Amino acid sequence: MPSAEWQPRWRTGDTDQMLRHVALFRWNPSTTSDVIDAATAGLAGLPPAIPEIAVYRFGSDAGINDGNFDFAVVADFESRGDYVAYRDHPAHQAVLAERISPHVSDRAAVQYEY
Amino acid sequence: MPSAEWQPRWRTGDTDQMLRHVALFRWNPSTTSDVIDAATAGLAGLPPAIPEIAVYRFGSDAGINDGNFDFAVVADFESRGDYVAYRDHPAHQAVLAERISPHVSDRAAVQYEY
Repeated sequence: MPSAEWQPRWRTGDTDQMLRHVALFRWNPSTTSDVIDAATAGLAGLPPAIPEIAVYRFGSDAGINDGNFDFAVVADFESRGDYVAYRDHPAHQAVLAERISPHVSDRAAVQYEY
Repeated sequence: MPSAEWQPRWRTGDTDQMLRHVALFRWNPSTTSDVIDAATAGLAGLPPAIPEIAVYRFGSDAGINDGNFDFAVVADFESRGDYVAYRDHPAHQAVLAERISPHVSDRAAVQYEY
């Protein structure tokens, strides 16, 4: 039997939809590991600063497949409002402006409910 | 206190790293809702067919932000080997070949450990 965990929430009786935010980045070719470490440290500081974040998972591409982007952030929220609070939070905006955006050549994002 | 859920696993004592696969798609402009429904149904059939999938969450962009991709798939695995088994599984390859790839104009992906 497959586990219930993959199932849509409406099938498991859990009707509280989550809002998942996904952002993928490509770094500029000149980006150093120190820059990526600083970005990672900045992101790690966000959950303690932004209580609306329910689950926060991020990391560098594992190098399994060619053609991938370089870095992923996946954040889960209990509501759209919580996501927007995170998106617009000054601590998040500061990490983006100071540690991520200046080094990003390409970005792809989706927010979806599950 | 922030919950433990956002914390890196090595801080919570859970040393079993997960491998997360993220794929974002843009549909071709001519893609109909029937095509997206068929893709969604195809994806929903994969967890019962591929036991290596630990958690499977996918969906269409919620329309909160401009400039986003259209669709996200996030799948969690207990190992890289489980991810590769999913990636190469005939049921997955069939959904990609028949229901997704012909309609995709842009794709971004990352696999990362957390």
